[in-house]
Amino acid sequence: MRRPTIGVFDSGFGGLTVLKALLELIPVADYLYFGDTARLPYGSKSAQTVAKYAVEATQYLEQHGAGLLVIACNTATALALDPIRDASSVPVIGVVDPGAERASMVSENRKVAVIGTEATIGSHAYLRALEMRGLEAREKACPLLVPLVEEGWVDHPVTEQVARIYLEEVFTDGFANADVLLLGCTHYPLLKPVLRRVAPQHAAIVDSAESTAQVVAEQLRLAPPSVAPPQERLRPTLLRFFATDSAEKFRRLGARFLGRPIEDVQHVDLKE
Amino acid sequence: MRRPTIGVFDSGFGGLTVLKALLELIPVADYLYFGDTARLPYGSKSAQTVAKYAVEATQYLEQHGAGLLVIACNTATALALDPIRDASSVPVIGVVDPGAERASMVSENRKVAVIGTEATIGSHAYLRALEMRGLEAREKACPLLVPLVEEGWVDHPVTEQVARIYLEEVFTDGFANADVLLLGCTHYPLLKPVLRRVAPQHAAIVDSAESTAQVVAEQLRLAPPSVAPPQERLRPTLLRFFATDSAEKFRRLGARFLGRPIEDVQHVDLKE
Repeated sequence: MRRPTIGVFDSGFGGLTVLKALLELIPVADYLYFGDTARLPYGSKSAQTVAKYAVEATQYLEQHGAGLLVIACNTATALALDPIRDASSVPVIGVVDPGAERASMVSENRKVAVIGTEATIGSHAYLRALEMRGLEAREKACPLLVPLVEEGWVDHPVTEQVARIYLEEVFTDGFANADVLLLGCTHYPLLKPVLRRVAPQHAAIVDSAESTAQVVAEQLRLAPPSVAPPQERLRPTLLRFFATDSAEKFRRLGARFLGRPIEDVQHVDLKE
Repeated sequence: MRRPTIGVFDSGFGGLTVLKALLELIPVADYLYFGDTARLPYGSKSAQTVAKYAVEATQYLEQHGAGLLVIACNTATALALDPIRDASSVPVIGVVDPGAERASMVSENRKVAVIGTEATIGSHAYLRALEMRGLEAREKACPLLVPLVEEGWVDHPVTEQVARIYLEEVFTDGFANADVLLLGCTHYPLLKPVLRRVAPQHAAIVDSAESTAQVVAEQLRLAPPSVAPPQERLRPTLLRFFATDSAEKFRRLGARFLGRPIEDVQHVDLKE
């Protein structure tokens, strides 16, 4: 199959966990990542503004050669997937449906606990996607988890205490026996060790980042662009990054999310 | 003295702690508060963008009758005080100088610990203001404290633990004996009980919000507009709020910062 170029878009750094999962699952591909770091967070903005920003960024990726777009941002997926699809001429994959689909495959008692940011939970995008698949969902906004990840306290006693408080509020009443914890935020994969310790033993952790990478791999298997010459298949993965705020800051903070050094970052100036 | 109308500006809710201090110190006045909640946080934006937003908001306050402007936002004070002054025809008071001045009055050994958000600390506005007054300063960004206040965990064991970790990192080495802890963020007055418990006994807590209210009171004493008729002085305080995001959300979240119910909120649409 021809070597694909995959464009990954997020408002900031969180989408790098999706890119990390993609790199593990689909190493023979090239990647372009766009982080709209000057205009984050999207969570506090109107649907109209989020759609405008997301379309600008994804158009930029398409113009730079992306043949498939991954919206690695829960807010943009929840608020702007349709406008992005309308503006694109390549396949577009968001993070919500893959996460919900995977939760549906894993859950036996059809009860899922979803955690995410205030904006994602407030959109009820996961609730709708889960209910469409015949699952009951309880949603819980966990606004402190992103700041804790960004402070670098990914395996810290404070983070464990905060996560325990949040999860106790969701695994309770009718949902004490929910058998899936769905991570509805691209920052949360970094907290998996902590979340595994504090979540009930019987609950499987489903990660939207990994689930999205699996859907992308599936999409490429189903619609392989064409056969690539052998030498092209063996070339090392090309990784390029675009950031609307400081490139230096992107390099420094991004490495933590990607789990490897970030080199080729280009500053992009999209108009306010 | 004529009843003044004081315009208070912040990117969000934090400035309400300054308004609260003003209401206690200067009850015979009318107040207009502008919260640019649709465009917060300012901390991640460029100086140019912050100045543009801040000038728009303060012009709005002046057009609605403000005879004195209080920039109750550390980022806007640090990045945009001069452009705001240039655009205004009334006196403008920021939060940085009053806090630094009060710290200077209180400190005996001339060593001050300053805490604030990443943006405020990164601007070094407090460092410069303190050094100008012959004080040594150590700055510490505390990015988790604002999210903790916004989660409502103002007197919570997690918050106490986080504050203890941050303060241990600032009151150390040459600064173990610093005798002032300067709160360089308008969210932090809500954390005063916790901060008093975890700060060293010998350190006085100086609050930019209170210090700013004192400077405003002083300014009004020095430049009283004129004598008001007695019946005007006895009229209850007029309090109006303008917010660029949802008025309902402003009412709900704002009450926590102001310490009293918020009623008269008007949604304002400033262009993106």
